[in-house]
Amino acid sequence: MFRILLLFFLFISTSHASDFCVADLKGVKSPSGYPCKSHVTVDDFVFSGFKAGNTSNVFKAALTPAFVDEFPGVNGLGFSAARLDLDVGGIIPMHSHPGGSELLIMVSGHITAGFIASDNSVFLKTLSKGDLMIFPQGLLHFQLNAGNTKATAIFAYSSTNPGAQLLDLALFGNNLDSMLVQKSTFLDLAQVKKLKGAFGGSY
Amino acid sequence: MFRILLLFFLFISTSHASDFCVADLKGVKSPSGYPCKSHVTVDDFVFSGFKAGNTSNVFKAALTPAFVDEFPGVNGLGFSAARLDLDVGGIIPMHSHPGGSELLIMVSGHITAGFIASDNSVFLKTLSKGDLMIFPQGLLHFQLNAGNTKATAIFAYSSTNPGAQLLDLALFGNNLDSMLVQKSTFLDLAQVKKLKGAFGGSY
Amino acid sequence: MFRILLLFFLFISTSHASDFCVADLKGVKSPSGYPCKSHVTVDDFVFSGFKAGNTSNVFKAALTPAFVDEFPGVNGLGFSAARLDLDVGGIIPMHSHPGGSELLIMVSGHITAGFIASDNSVFLKTLSKGDLMIFPQGLLHFQLNAGNTKATAIFAYSSTNPGAQLLDLALFGNNLDSMLVQKSTFLDLAQVKKLKGAFGGSY
Amino acid sequence: MFRILLLFFLFISTSHASDFCVADLKGVKSPSGYPCKSHVTVDDFVFSGFKAGNTSNVFKAALTPAFVDEFPGVNGLGFSAARLDLDVGGIIPMHSHPGGSELLIMVSGHITAGFIASDNSVFLKTLSKGDLMIFPQGLLHFQLNAGNTKATAIFAYSSTNPGAQLLDLALFGNNLDSMLVQKSTFLDLAQVKKLKGAFGGSY
Amino acid sequence: MFRILLLFFLFISTSHASDFCVADLKGVKSPSGYPCKSHVTVDDFVFSGFKAGNTSNVFKAALTPAFVDEFPGVNGLGFSAARLDLDVGGIIPMHSHPGGSELLIMVSGHITAGFIASDNSVFLKTLSKGDLMIFPQGLLHFQLNAGNTKATAIFAYSSTNPGAQLLDLALFGNNLDSMLVQKSTFLDLAQVKKLKGAFGGSY
Amino acid sequence: MFRILLLFFLFISTSHASDFCVADLKGVKSPSGYPCKSHVTVDDFVFSGFKAGNTSNVFKAALTPAFVDEFPGVNGLGFSAARLDLDVGGIIPMHSHPGGSELLIMVSGHITAGFIASDNSVFLKTLSKGDLMIFPQGLLHFQLNAGNTKATAIFAYSSTNPGAQLLDLALFGNNLDSMLVQKSTFLDLAQVKKLKGAFGGSY
Repeated sequence: MFRILLLFFLFISTSHASDFCVADLKGVKSPSGYPCKSHVTVDDFVFSGFKAGNTSNVFKAALTPAFVDEFPGVNGLGFSAARLDLDVGGIIPMHSHPGGSELLIMVSGHITAGFIASDNSVFLKTLSKGDLMIFPQGLLHFQLNAGNTKATAIFAYSSTNPGAQLLDLALFGNNLDSMLVQKSTFLDLAQVKKLKGAFGGSY
Repeated sequence: MFRILLLFFLFISTSHASDFCVADLKGVKSPSGYPCKSHVTVDDFVFSGFKAGNTSNVFKAALTPAFVDEFPGVNGLGFSAARLDLDVGGIIPMHSHPGGSELLIMVSGHITAGFIASDNSVFLKTLSKGDLMIFPQGLLHFQLNAGNTKATAIFAYSSTNPGAQLLDLALFGNNLDSMLVQKSTFLDLAQVKKLKGAFGGSY
Repeated sequence: MFRILLLFFLFISTSHASDFCVADLKGVKSPSGYPCKSHVTVDDFVFSGFKAGNTSNVFKAALTPAFVDEFPGVNGLGFSAARLDLDVGGIIPMHSHPGGSELLIMVSGHITAGFIASDNSVFLKTLSKGDLMIFPQGLLHFQLNAGNTKATAIFAYSSTNPGAQLLDLALFGNNLDSMLVQKSTFLDLAQVKKLKGAFGGSY
Repeated sequence: MFRILLLFFLFISTSHASDFCVADLKGVKSPSGYPCKSHVTVDDFVFSGFKAGNTSNVFKAALTPAFVDEFPGVNGLGFSAARLDLDVGGIIPMHSHPGGSELLIMVSGHITAGFIASDNSVFLKTLSKGDLMIFPQGLLHFQLNAGNTKATAIFAYSSTNPGAQLLDLALFGNNLDSMLVQKSTFLDLAQVKKLKGAFGGSY
Repeated sequence: MFRILLLFFLFISTSHASDFCVADLKGVKSPSGYPCKSHVTVDDFVFSGFKAGNTSNVFKAALTPAFVDEFPGVNGLGFSAARLDLDVGGIIPMHSHPGGSELLIMVSGHITAGFIASDNSVFLKTLSKGDLMIFPQGLLHFQLNAGNTKATAIFAYSSTNPGAQLLDLALFGNNLDSMLVQKSTFLDLAQVKKLKGAFGGSY
Repeated sequence: MFRILLLFFLFISTSHASDFCVADLKGVKSPSGYPCKSHVTVDDFVFSGFKAGNTSNVFKAALTPAFVDEFPGVNGLGFSAARLDLDVGGIIPMHSHPGGSELLIMVSGHITAGFIASDNSVFLKTLSKGDLMIFPQGLLHFQLNAGNTKATAIFAYSSTNPGAQLLDLALFGNNLDSMLVQKSTFLDLAQVKKLKGAFGGSY
């Protein structure tokens, strides 16, 4: 009896194109993101990679991103996420996200986190399970394990691709002339060269 | 020697007003959110309420929001979060978020979740620890515990206040005339009245 | 004498590319919409399809959309429109638009319309010629002919493609398992199966 | 039995604040619009002023706006509307909307309408009942009755307050020095003074 | 010792794709701008064309744009610039920018500039070196040399492609029928035809 | 004869409220900026402070901002500007703008400027009169006088208040614990303490 309904409404219901725009990662990006994939399944909306990261490195840290390049379903939706693992003594060193704000959500352990505002005031807190902390877009911040156990946290971002500028890599991990680094940062030249050595930059 | 620097740069560094806009919840909202609080401390950027919720209810579920009204620091930043606790057999029934998209991040247990797109296609998945799933803005969706243990998840939203329209409460939890509900949903009148009774609506 | 002017200004006036971006519907969409058509004429900005729709269906209703897929000129402009025809006794059943708000503009006849807000309060009104009514983005709403004559209205939307999620089709017009519908909506299983039959869903 | 549900969900459903922001017209505007009214009823979402306008003027035209100042419900929603009545021989002279694009929807009669793009190309069409035409933001355009009967149309805008800059009033209806008008438009001084007289400007 | 760091962070630092989106001008535009160029160098962020323009024309003026089509690096960044040279007696005649607001920054000389608001009020000022003046989006404005020396200024725009609608060219520099110009502007027909002759329009 | 026109159009032309929103700096900010000033004159759109700055400081540099707090007319318009004076040997040290992108426009002299992208690649160029260079939002950058004469430049920003985070002041000009600085930057503790002394931070 009611089956005729379907025919009637198909004209406004034939497309989910306005609901979402899963990234076609092989397509060319524009300022609004990747072009939309034409056929999608539920797996385009699911990401299964938030496993414990490998913290066997000098930072004793692992960050597992679910940005648009890893999780194409967030394309055009204005958010993304990442998982943080910090071993005892681990640290995510000073960095900023040029493209979005960050929300840290503690899952286990203890983390001391801080950010510095444009007026140079410091916002510093030690966080435990169940705590959230905001790091506004573009501001320098860091996170370090403040306890005697591993710490795990979830990051949410207000961007599908917040980017990340690591201070040490930006200053010391490239071919920026040591004299320019010294002049623009007031660090001693010896300090600059020492860290260029450590972070793989050319002198 | 360098101390003179501070005086020099104060003129561009005296204010963090452009970095963030913590909500003054006593102020009057505008389309862009709450007015900005004039003095802020680190505690404005920290929310400590993601404790296990009370699931002693018919849904065997608890949702703990950190939207702008609970967490004023997200004002103007375009994101917010919530914690979900689902007891064995628990469910978050069919609903949608008019104001933003949702990202579910599994912390423990197993959840079967689904959303329905504008073309009526169903996107359904059973999720485990480490999985993420997207629920695009305005689309009907639900989540139910799919395992034999409690399930816990984090939600991130692409809005400081995504809102939530619960289907049963929208249809049966208010004074919308039963005949109008019947006509606009094709439910049987007896069904409408039964659920109006359950959800507290007037007939 | 002044003819030299043209040469002078051509360098800033050779392109209308910033004025508009008519959709090339054969192109691949991105989050900001369709790519721009390279050559346009006035007919790209004109849509001639707002004729009386065919209301010979169980809803006694017809909706004629002028969204971006029917009217490529609205691409990138943030609005679109539709025409509504409601025969005597006709209804547009409960639905929501995930992508934009709706503005109903009465042309003839009488329509009773309502929407339900996130706090479950009901906003209900009977409208006559010359009345306008707003239905905010993502909220459930419906419209039914409240008179003894045909009713006609214009819809404007705050999106080039607002989408439409019809409640009955979302719940009953697809392959969503009847048990999941029952659990997530608290409808009786018999009711679910009856409407699945009517709306063409699988059991 | 189910009544306990209400208590459970109240914490996420006590507010419709994220659904809409009806303008408090007595409040002070900000770039995002008016502050939100604290208590709303259905009448905040309904506007009843689209009656036939008074065309007893030299333009033989009437425009009835439903912008945010007349229809506070559109605040923050990004659209608004107006009704146009054009008597036989009536015209809406050359003007532009700095704040939004316009969509003309014909209701009755015949209208010749045109706009001029940044590359000076002309987009001109005679429209009849059922036709729609787009006028992109900021471009000069006009509409004139092209038939032997009254013409009526609806305008939708991609802004809650598109503004309107009438060319003749901008050039001739104020205290802009006649010599400056002449120099900046290449009109003859006599023409400028004649129209300053007509449109009430000072010389 | 620290060299292992590089390997660790490469997974979040392999791409600058979120930092910027230099226009591939050969690609097809969408509402958000041009597609992104895949390989960039510093020269994509540098534009070297702000030389003194050729003012040997009837306007005694030259405008050198650095919009997205000349300076692809601004794509997606929401700003652009131009250089203005005005010889003694030079003028930029009445025009508007449909796509963005303008900020004039005086470099040398004296300029009298004005804009007209939607309420027809005039905002007029004579500017000297070191002065800035705002011309809001879509409003008619003009600039003329007010001194005895050449004047130079920089324009910044709140758009990568603000467009420019020159009043005389829009009215008189195309094939818009002279009668339609007369009717829609109230100019005398003789005046219309005279300026059509000067600005190259057809009668 | 035509004077009647004025009465006719006043209803759509009585307000410039949609054209602009000059900041009332005494009002409370919201995420969209300051509330709008109710009465404006041309002086609200003019800023006269781009004079040569005082470069008698260790940086041999002066930056004169015209952000919303100095130039309330830019409120809500999405751009602002600043003037840079660099004496011989002068430098604007490493910093970033969390809130917007920067466009440098050379007026006189020679400047070597560079920015570092999220992938740590360096974009470096020596600029002369007539050159423009882009510094995308949130990325570290610097500018130093590369010649034997004073250098002057104009900055345009894609924000009414881009903010500025000076690296040395963020790390060394506040009360951030020296050990935390050392841990999060890998600088030697002696270096940290030395610069804390220079930039006025506490140890």
